[in-house]
Amino acid sequence: MGHDMAYGLARRQLQPRVPLRPGEGDKDHLTSLEGLSALSLDALSSVAYGPESIVLALVVAGAGALRATLPITLVITVLLVVLVVSYGQVIAVHPDGGGAYAVARKDLGRVPSLLAAASLVVDYVLTVAVSLAAGTDALVSAFPALDGDKLAVCLAGLLLLTAVNLRGVTESARLLMLPTLLFVAGIFAVIVVGLARPHPMAMVGTAEPVHATEALGLLVILKAFSSGCSALTGVEAIANAVPTFREPRVKRAQRTELMLGALLGVMLVGLAVLIRRNDVVPRGGVTVLAQLTAGAFGTGWMYYATNVVVALVLLLAANTSFGGLPVLMSLLARDHRLPHLFGLRAERPVYRWGVAVLSLTAALLLIAVDADTHKLIPLFAIGVFLGFTLSQTGLVLHWRRERPPGWRRRAALNGLGAVLTTIATCVLLGTKFLEGAWVVVVTVPLMMLLFSRIERYYRAAGEELGLGRIPPPPRSRRSLVIVPLGQVSNVAQHALTAAMALGDEVVAVVVHHDPNKSRALMDAWNRWNPGVRLDVLDSPHRSLVEPVVGYVNEAARDGRQVAVLIPEVEPRSRRYKLLQNQRGLLLATVLRARTDVVVCILPHRIDL
Amino acid sequence: MGHDMAYGLARRQLQPRVPLRPGEGDKDHLTSLEGLSALSLDALSSVAYGPESIVLALVVAGAGALRATLPITLVITVLLVVLVVSYGQVIAVHPDGGGAYAVARKDLGRVPSLLAAASLVVDYVLTVAVSLAAGTDALVSAFPALDGDKLAVCLAGLLLLTAVNLRGVTESARLLMLPTLLFVAGIFAVIVVGLARPHPMAMVGTAEPVHATEALGLLVILKAFSSGCSALTGVEAIANAVPTFREPRVKRAQRTELMLGALLGVMLVGLAVLIRRNDVVPRGGVTVLAQLTAGAFGTGWMYYATNVVVALVLLLAANTSFGGLPVLMSLLARDHRLPHLFGLRAERPVYRWGVAVLSLTAALLLIAVDADTHKLIPLFAIGVFLGFTLSQTGLVLHWRRERPPGWRRRAALNGLGAVLTTIATCVLLGTKFLEGAWVVVVTVPLMMLLFSRIERYYRAAGEELGLGRIPPPPRSRRSLVIVPLGQVSNVAQHALTAAMALGDEVVAVVVHHDPNKSRALMDAWNRWNPGVRLDVLDSPHRSLVEPVVGYVNEAARDGRQVAVLIPEVEPRSRRYKLLQNQRGLLLATVLRARTDVVVCILPHRIDL
Repeated sequence: MGHDMAYGLARRQLQPRVPLRPGEGDKDHLTSLEGLSALSLDALSSVAYGPESIVLALVVAGAGALRATLPITLVITVLLVVLVVSYGQVIAVHPDGGGAYAVARKDLGRVPSLLAAASLVVDYVLTVAVSLAAGTDALVSAFPALDGDKLAVCLAGLLLLTAVNLRGVTESARLLMLPTLLFVAGIFAVIVVGLARPHPMAMVGTAEPVHATEALGLLVILKAFSSGCSALTGVEAIANAVPTFREPRVKRAQRTELMLGALLGVMLVGLAVLIRRNDVVPRGGVTVLAQLTAGAFGTGWMYYATNVVVALVLLLAANTSFGGLPVLMSLLARDHRLPHLFGLRAERPVYRWGVAVLSLTAALLLIAVDADTHKLIPLFAIGVFLGFTLSQTGLVLHWRRERPPGWRRRAALNGLGAVLTTIATCVLLGTKFLEGAWVVVVTVPLMMLLFSRIERYYRAAGEELGLGRIPPPPRSRRSLVIVPLGQVSNVAQHALTAAMALGDEVVAVVVHHDPNKSRALMDAWNRWNPGVRLDVLDSPHRSLVEPVVGYVNEAARDGRQVAVLIPEVEPRSRRYKLLQNQRGLLLATVLRARTDVVVCILPHRIDL
Repeated sequence: MGHDMAYGLARRQLQPRVPLRPGEGDKDHLTSLEGLSALSLDALSSVAYGPESIVLALVVAGAGALRATLPITLVITVLLVVLVVSYGQVIAVHPDGGGAYAVARKDLGRVPSLLAAASLVVDYVLTVAVSLAAGTDALVSAFPALDGDKLAVCLAGLLLLTAVNLRGVTESARLLMLPTLLFVAGIFAVIVVGLARPHPMAMVGTAEPVHATEALGLLVILKAFSSGCSALTGVEAIANAVPTFREPRVKRAQRTELMLGALLGVMLVGLAVLIRRNDVVPRGGVTVLAQLTAGAFGTGWMYYATNVVVALVLLLAANTSFGGLPVLMSLLARDHRLPHLFGLRAERPVYRWGVAVLSLTAALLLIAVDADTHKLIPLFAIGVFLGFTLSQTGLVLHWRRERPPGWRRRAALNGLGAVLTTIATCVLLGTKFLEGAWVVVVTVPLMMLLFSRIERYYRAAGEELGLGRIPPPPRSRRSLVIVPLGQVSNVAQHALTAAMALGDEVVAVVVHHDPNKSRALMDAWNRWNPGVRLDVLDSPHRSLVEPVVGYVNEAARDGRQVAVLIPEVEPRSRRYKLLQNQRGLLLATVLRARTDVVVCILPHRIDL
């Protein structure tokens, strides 16, 4: 089960979503470089909004306060180093992968695992919303005409993702390599070319007045730090996905994690230096990254290309959630913490349901904040840091239990990671509570409560169903099959054939409110003479369902097993389905709700 | 069937929508006065927008052209007299009631009846939209603050109607008497008090510049006439509903029709005289009726009260469609021109479906015209006048066939009605084509095509099903019942009991992707030893459905009757339903689509 779960979660970013065909998933194990492009999109794309959120947090203390961007970024980079080394440990200890939920469930117990699950769900939804909002910002920087329609652009992007995922795409790591490569190359080019120029080549956006409304105190610095931590979201993805690497997979995954850490660290520091060098202040209609891009390349085609690539990569980052959430939901379902239905993630309708719920929630969030990236970031970072803290803590407990050689050193490292991420979480909660973090503080416990209520229901239901006990042997009963019919036809013949095979006794019933029609049917029946009794049920109020329900409940009284067999004409062509079918389904639904008999549907196919 | 249909349509305005309880419908036969309030809402409320639409059509020729309002109204009143006398005849000939669809079907044949059906459907939808839009205009006249939110007010009204009708209200004629009485009294008071005053007591609304852009030619006059004819919509309702009157019902219905005609005629002429006397020109933010009201009563509480009563009566007029459309749809279903499902109008889910479709279409229309009453009127009047023409023509053919004493005189009268309404229809089509009538010209034939395609499908399906022929006798076969199970539990015991009663042979199957779980289940099975074989199906891809479908299709090859019995845990509490149930339903759906076996659902109720 442990393996099972971990591997499930590990499949997050790159497995085809609806694995119905055999043999798939065997050949696409990843090299380090493929792993980097498939698993680091979420993390790398954070540089599009992380540095900017530091700048926006500092500017309340005036333009001069922006000089603090670089030192704050350096602190965040130190945290990044600790996280990357810690996750190297996680990879070694959980070579079967394992998200925060799996680790917490195994090493920390019930409540922490519920906490991890809830924060992961929040995280998946927010990844979609933040990435789309930030991608839209990048697009608007390139095409200012879209400025008034940011929300519409966001929702259009979401619609695209939803449509693609409802169809069930097969994502391939190789397909993701090109945009990832372009993105990394673009950001490095911005940094290198930008630093090489004596002055920014061009300014974009509209100037906005900068007023210092607060002094550059500890609170402002903490806020900037906690906002900037949003740049670290996504570094856990590789550790979740170890089984998707080629052998030696631990080595490859660790190498990939290091590469991700190095790239992300260099990009963050480089951008911070460039922000300082160019004296960037927030300007209207453009992102900070777009300002740096214009500074490096001017406003020619490179400017457009870079912004479009950034938007594309953010769109792909949003897409990772559509792979991850259904996997998490199926794990929760198997632990009886979500409806068991979601355990059937391989079934297309179930998967689609998950996609629809994720899209709808993300759409509501985007509408609520009017597609403003920086209103979402406080919500976003908390969930992620909760996950960091839980998995680091789990690892400390793991070391203490297993005590391998050098366990103290390793536990100390993970402990440091846990302490740092706990501090970051507390800072985020403290400084951002009123700015949106309260939403997470309210939502996460509610979800934990929901999971635990569902768990309680399933326990009670299992008790009621006698799970784990040996039930009495099945009884032997005689049976009566009731066949509701409308006319004497081939359908009636088919239905009676089936009913006679299934029942010791068979009765046909017909509901009519028109005595003439009933008489005509009775005549036809007698001419046919199928050897089965026909009962005519009167329906003064034109209801088909009521008389049948009454008849069936009456028949079920004598201790026999009663079944109602409903023949349903099934035309081959989809568009005729609405013309047939519906009356029987209506009857079946009502019978299931209001009687205890077996309700049987017999499809009768016709060639139309 | 004839009676049946006519009576069905006749129940339009006042029957409870979901007649499930016995004995209803017997005691609420109507007196003339009750009939007037129950059946004339639609017609009487047209005075809220009919005269105004004449004014709006004339004003393009300048303020002076408004003098033509009175003569045009007099011509429309002549048409009203002809219609009322004609409908007196219709009542005498069809004492069982009969809408345009029933009359056309009986006397005119297939294509005219399809035309009548399509135009009636259009009419029902437009009655909802026009009445809501006009009601909103009346409300906005009283509360100018709502001016910017007209569409929202309309949609809120529609939402209210939808909610009320989804719950299935019982409308009573007596309940409608008070608003009808208040409305008629209010309009008469406006006319009498208005004419008694030497000058209008107050002006409301904002002045709008009046520029003559056209001369007062024939075209403008014809347009004004055709728009004004919208005041006649609804006069057919009484003739549709003769069976709902108390005996002597023909007399009572004719008397009610005359009362309706007299009231409507006097109100129309009175309002036209007052429009002339007060030199009314269209003003911003208020209706013409509101201007006349302010002229008579000033802007005190009487002004507010009158406008609110007008809005209320229009809301109730919109509501009449929610009673009428389901009846028409059930008639069409019985003639195989709509899915048979709609024949089950007495079943709540079917009825709700009809309500939802009507609301949605009306909402789309309101959004398309931004709740502008006068954009909808050209669409509205055409459908109604088509119905007038068809029923008058049907009556002429009836007289010619039956030849009762004095039939020539009667045929001449109905013929005159038919000619006049044909002319009105042609004028409407000709003058309003580009202003919206084209929508009707496109929609009506499309609907006729749809009805006739559905008819053709049912004919072909009947052929395929051997309807009307005596089928071969049912065959005798042996049976195999397959029971998909997850665990050894009380559910399994219940399911095997039912399966053993139904099948000559029973097999249980279980789908597992985890060999450990399969072994544990097999052990429990052997300890239980229910006397039934258990087959374990392997599912490498975690699909529940695929292995079962394959197994079932394999088992169905040997000529036995195969049934799959799916036990479904049914908790008593609604909110737990999502937690249970869904997997079995998924399996049942796929089996129905992809195999030819009988799919049986066994509800297993638990006390949670």
